[in-house]
Amino acid sequence: MSDFSRLSLNTATTKKWTLQQAVDGCVRAGIPAIGPWRDRVAEAGLENAARMIRDAGLRVSSLCRGGFLTAADPEGQAAALQDNRQAVLEAVALGTSELFLVVGGLAPGEKDVLAARQRVADRLAELVPFASAHGVRLVLEPLHPMYAADRALISTLGQALDLAAPYPVEAVGVAVDTFHVWWDPELKVQIERAGREGRIASYQVCDFNLPIAADALLSRGMMGDGVIDFATITAWIRDAGFTGDIEVEIFNQEIWDADGDEVIATMKERYAELVLPHA
Amino acid sequence: MSDFSRLSLNTATTKKWTLQQAVDGCVRAGIPAIGPWRDRVAEAGLENAARMIRDAGLRVSSLCRGGFLTAADPEGQAAALQDNRQAVLEAVALGTSELFLVVGGLAPGEKDVLAARQRVADRLAELVPFASAHGVRLVLEPLHPMYAADRALISTLGQALDLAAPYPVEAVGVAVDTFHVWWDPELKVQIERAGREGRIASYQVCDFNLPIAADALLSRGMMGDGVIDFATITAWIRDAGFTGDIEVEIFNQEIWDADGDEVIATMKERYAELVLPHA
Repeated sequence: MSDFSRLSLNTATTKKWTLQQAVDGCVRAGIPAIGPWRDRVAEAGLENAARMIRDAGLRVSSLCRGGFLTAADPEGQAAALQDNRQAVLEAVALGTSELFLVVGGLAPGEKDVLAARQRVADRLAELVPFASAHGVRLVLEPLHPMYAADRALISTLGQALDLAAPYPVEAVGVAVDTFHVWWDPELKVQIERAGREGRIASYQVCDFNLPIAADALLSRGMMGDGVIDFATITAWIRDAGFTGDIEVEIFNQEIWDADGDEVIATMKERYAELVLPHA
Repeated sequence: MSDFSRLSLNTATTKKWTLQQAVDGCVRAGIPAIGPWRDRVAEAGLENAARMIRDAGLRVSSLCRGGFLTAADPEGQAAALQDNRQAVLEAVALGTSELFLVVGGLAPGEKDVLAARQRVADRLAELVPFASAHGVRLVLEPLHPMYAADRALISTLGQALDLAAPYPVEAVGVAVDTFHVWWDPELKVQIERAGREGRIASYQVCDFNLPIAADALLSRGMMGDGVIDFATITAWIRDAGFTGDIEVEIFNQEIWDADGDEVIATMKERYAELVLPHA
């Protein structure tokens, strides 16, 4: 029997399911943890979402997601801070300490990467005290460089660690998502550094499929279907001391179109075969 | 009058043109340099290609391209070396010292990035003496990480410089192609390093278009059409001491479908507006 005690279903993987359906699917499959997206939580209602997850006996491994901190205008910046504070409160209500941040890309028409990155740092500084006061860690997620312009100007783990460095490890962490970072020639040393610095807040697994999907956001694949060496990266994460939940988050039209229970069954198989032996 | 004395047309930009048409197009437009692709050279015949470029009074800024060095089997490795030696001889015949290498991705079915990168280093070591003996510099081109698995496992300028480090600067250089590296948080310091180390062999400009094209290879855009800050990157290149030709290499279906002379006219306008003032 494989040990699924660290496996978590990110609700994006079973996109067509409501939160209740995803919770029920986890329970049926013996998966002990769930990583909900905020839109699914909002549909269910925050209190109801928290209760249904708690009643099912599931852990919440993280909340996806806050971020989008790069607005250039005061109104946009105020709105982003307000939304992120709300996300912090949702994390508290759901009982997770880990709030993912996808930091955002260039403002409309902007080309100044350095200025946009500085705004990320500025907004982070404003957000940390509120999150820390509520016991929530802001989890900086480096995204694949193909999304740098429009989703996240944090593209490498090293960059995320640099941005996190001024803050206590309980306040700001980093996520390692195999899809986003597998190509990075610095990956091993930056995972070692992240471990040494106590910053690894989440490990997410999914594959990098080729060819890249026509909608580049949907190139995430089931572990084993793409090019990623899960044995090596997972061993680096293990050696860095990470013992938390391992989330599976896949954006992929074919997987979204499939039966949710079958997706979870495949996910368990691939996790047991490719990830768990090295975790 | 703008100064186009450093502008070079990479023949991929006018893909439907034969080499002769591209040469004629450069002459008509007053562009003094050309960066041919090997397939266009082969169509024309090497000696004929060299003669037509020479007769037109054009410089050859570089030859695209050798590389694809990651074969895992001895036959594949021997074939790659043979092809790259041939490319060196073609560069000599064309009168350029700069041979681009797109180093290749994972072998079929392979997932071991570290082993594949080691094979790049091994093949490079075998190729350098031959290239150097012929006065040709091997130009390592970092490609955008979205092409890491299937085209080039060199994804950053820093990684290219590390790979070049064991060799004389006349033997191995690096290319800076704005499309591939604009997102890199280390870009400024690595361009500074490349200048300090005397490794910048080529500066190529084209934009990064959004959304990413359905065929991800074709997301390259005319300068000004995408997200890239040419002023900043070009100034970094200038401050690093680069005074060579600036090539425009664009893979883009819409541009390929357009009239070649019009493409070159737009290229000159955009170069004069966005690149030249900072070069």
